[in-house]
Amino acid sequence: MTGGIKEANAGTAWGPDLAKLKIRALVLEGQPDPKEPYFGVRITWDGEKPAVEFFEADEYTGKDVYEVYPEMFEKYGRKASIASMGKAGEMGYSNSGIVFNDMHQRPSRYAGRGGLGAVMASKRVKFIVLDSTGAPAIEMVDKALFDEGRKKLIDAIRSHPISQPKGGLNSYGTAVLVNILNEAGGLPTRNFSAGRFEGAAKTSGEAIFETNKERMGKEVYNHACSPGCIIQCSNTLYRPDQSEATSCIEYESTWSLGANLGIDNLDDIATMNQLCNAYGLDTIETGGTLGVAMEAGLLEFGDSKGAIKLIEEMGKGSALGRTLSAGTGATGQIYGVRRVPHVKGQGMPAYEPRAVKGIGITYATTTMGADHTAGYTICPEILGVSGKLDPLSPEGKAALSRAFQATTAFIDSCGHCLFIAFPILDIATGFEGMVQECNGVLGTNWDADAIVAYGMETLKVERAFNLAAGLSKEMDRVPEFMKTEPLPPHNQVFDIPDSALDSVFEGM
Amino acid sequence: MTGGIKEANAGTAWGPDLAKLKIRALVLEGQPDPKEPYFGVRITWDGEKPAVEFFEADEYTGKDVYEVYPEMFEKYGRKASIASMGKAGEMGYSNSGIVFNDMHQRPSRYAGRGGLGAVMASKRVKFIVLDSTGAPAIEMVDKALFDEGRKKLIDAIRSHPISQPKGGLNSYGTAVLVNILNEAGGLPTRNFSAGRFEGAAKTSGEAIFETNKERMGKEVYNHACSPGCIIQCSNTLYRPDQSEATSCIEYESTWSLGANLGIDNLDDIATMNQLCNAYGLDTIETGGTLGVAMEAGLLEFGDSKGAIKLIEEMGKGSALGRTLSAGTGATGQIYGVRRVPHVKGQGMPAYEPRAVKGIGITYATTTMGADHTAGYTICPEILGVSGKLDPLSPEGKAALSRAFQATTAFIDSCGHCLFIAFPILDIATGFEGMVQECNGVLGTNWDADAIVAYGMETLKVERAFNLAAGLSKEMDRVPEFMKTEPLPPHNQVFDIPDSALDSVFEGM
Repeated sequence: MTGGIKEANAGTAWGPDLAKLKIRALVLEGQPDPKEPYFGVRITWDGEKPAVEFFEADEYTGKDVYEVYPEMFEKYGRKASIASMGKAGEMGYSNSGIVFNDMHQRPSRYAGRGGLGAVMASKRVKFIVLDSTGAPAIEMVDKALFDEGRKKLIDAIRSHPISQPKGGLNSYGTAVLVNILNEAGGLPTRNFSAGRFEGAAKTSGEAIFETNKERMGKEVYNHACSPGCIIQCSNTLYRPDQSEATSCIEYESTWSLGANLGIDNLDDIATMNQLCNAYGLDTIETGGTLGVAMEAGLLEFGDSKGAIKLIEEMGKGSALGRTLSAGTGATGQIYGVRRVPHVKGQGMPAYEPRAVKGIGITYATTTMGADHTAGYTICPEILGVSGKLDPLSPEGKAALSRAFQATTAFIDSCGHCLFIAFPILDIATGFEGMVQECNGVLGTNWDADAIVAYGMETLKVERAFNLAAGLSKEMDRVPEFMKTEPLPPHNQVFDIPDSALDSVFEGM
Repeated sequence: MTGGIKEANAGTAWGPDLAKLKIRALVLEGQPDPKEPYFGVRITWDGEKPAVEFFEADEYTGKDVYEVYPEMFEKYGRKASIASMGKAGEMGYSNSGIVFNDMHQRPSRYAGRGGLGAVMASKRVKFIVLDSTGAPAIEMVDKALFDEGRKKLIDAIRSHPISQPKGGLNSYGTAVLVNILNEAGGLPTRNFSAGRFEGAAKTSGEAIFETNKERMGKEVYNHACSPGCIIQCSNTLYRPDQSEATSCIEYESTWSLGANLGIDNLDDIATMNQLCNAYGLDTIETGGTLGVAMEAGLLEFGDSKGAIKLIEEMGKGSALGRTLSAGTGATGQIYGVRRVPHVKGQGMPAYEPRAVKGIGITYATTTMGADHTAGYTICPEILGVSGKLDPLSPEGKAALSRAFQATTAFIDSCGHCLFIAFPILDIATGFEGMVQECNGVLGTNWDADAIVAYGMETLKVERAFNLAAGLSKEMDRVPEFMKTEPLPPHNQVFDIPDSALDSVFEGM
């Protein structure tokens, strides 16, 4: 999508399985002719080392992932961890993600952003199936140190209100943020034309929880997407007949398909979410693009049935569906829309840069295009995690974004879930524990400074890639309209000067 | 289209009329709300100075330019010179041009490339009507010097085989190049998969001339698009019933809608050409995009009726039409095509970089995206104008492209037609004459060195604009497939190293 480098994360057992198979990373080189058949890769443990086999996979293409995954589990057993992509990836869509199954074999966890599904499909690889059965435990240089760190981190997670059992994430999922951002005036509404949505509460994590409670006759807490996770933030929305409507509805998804489109019908949002999963679409990009389509007059804001139909067009690969699947920036260009919330072509996530200045700096300057996870300044700006900063103030936000981007690059690299950020930022022993875990596994001697340095080094490599790919620092900008159009309710513009944006990675 | 700066040229009386009205340039500032009505600007001579009036123009929108222009001439008289854009511009298409009428009131001359029609429409300006009736002659500092220069230039034009009366351009139009490039193996065929087209002769300038001769019962030579032009290269294709099918079919158009699509039916090419004119589409971009659409499997190469239908979709503004109208690069991305002949999103014109290396350097490095007119190295590489160079050799081509780009920037700036390049490059007195014309009008003291310096200064400003807009030198590249896929019949790849591309404007 961006023409630059891409990282995307999902949880699930796939990563731990890869590690158990003694593989640090898989590198897929080359690009077969698009007329070649699709194939799958399966990696198992042969008693001493990983064993790799290939299998033909053309028969699994052109289908919904919900149809294909059960067939794969049937074939390779329920212990398999499967990475794949849907029709969206096969059709080369810029809004296609890579899907992984959760602990209940649902193909519901997406490394969503930037078109990685299309990149995987361009390799003609439909599946990467891992089965670590029989493989030994992950080797550690200093297991005692790891265990010490693990205990500290677990204690921090269990004592922090956001991450603790029956806390914010476990009860309401990431969608716990809907009401918080709405209250802060930073919930982008109707294609980023306001920061507060009158229907927000109906689309919130609390609403999902209450709806489930009513439909299931009991409180339903969220589930883990990866083995051993104690945060357990993955939610499921149930239908009145107690069947699953979709899993999981992230904050980003209930926003992109909700407030961003002026839609407050949770069941329709769930339908859209499920369609995105079925086709292999990034929900953020899909919703962002639909917002631009609404701005262009293709349909009215609030028209949830029309939005569902447009997502179905994406699944069909019609001309309209293909256009929208090129993403927020491309759709804006094709329909001549001036208010297009994107950076480097990638649609903005669920935090308004005009109401939360630091996250706007992250959107503009990260190597990824508009991406909140690359430097989640929401922690201090909105949540009061690691102290509380005024979200409307531009003061010190460039340095804040840089610090978050560097630390995040480390957390992503070491395989911890980003949601440990809440406890480790607030609880010093939690941070210590995270570092000790890494040192215990790897035999490194990292401290806080080393971690930031490691993250900065990662960002340096990513930026060098982007520069070589033609993405210059002049592209590190938010769209023009955000600099001139005041956003209700705070009536703020994005007032971070270009020089401050350039300062984030100056001299790097 | 490119996200950078844009120049585009067309002939006609519009430029001279502006000069007679004592206006050097019109600057349209700002960007009204897209809900504002369209208006027209009319500039006349009030006896002492230009007089400007505005008029409402909404009633002329949504129509073909062939319908609108007669209404405007009816209203403002046949002496008017009119700049406008068609539906393509109104719909914000990246492949929309700005149209000017020729000396016979045909809206047939396009400043075609890069989406300038959409830029004009974004100002809500539907027309700029000039009428220089009553205005004095253009003032000159030294009329005797101008006349001396003019005579030399006219003599050179009249004695050069390409530009002389009943010479190449006057007989066959720019389409005289079809057979020449085909012979040289540099005529891009079927989306740049070969350099020679078996049906080329049927789509050539000679074929247009012979077809007209048969249908009109006499030899038909071409007409001038601007007052006083002695080259007179604008052709018309007539139908069997002697009505006009279209005017004009440039080399670029008969190629983009012909060889590039594997189409050799001249009448179908004329139909497509006429549709492009009617809607306000750039023929090069339209044909380039259709080539990519054929590569994507939307229709077969050679399917002229299908191609006509796709152009009609562009006119309708359907989802498919809008997608294709985003241009060659965008269509390639949306349909997941790997062989996409573009630079900076703009489709390549009618010269194959693998068969004519210098022009490939111009495509890659000009500020305009893939553009042949920015540095037309075809002169020495193919036509033997200013000496003859081996088109397949990479030797010295970076310096060649730079020299042509600088000189062209000057010629474009002073308002001479680029086609004087043939005589002034071959005939020293012709070049002298061109310089004397400029010095006579402006009172400057330019010589050959000053002209190159002026051109380089122009390019420097353009490049600074592009850098500030985020177009870095890493985007000065031809598509990857041209570096690896040998092109028949010479089986050459584009073997100009990146360092040579970077050297074109190094240190600028």
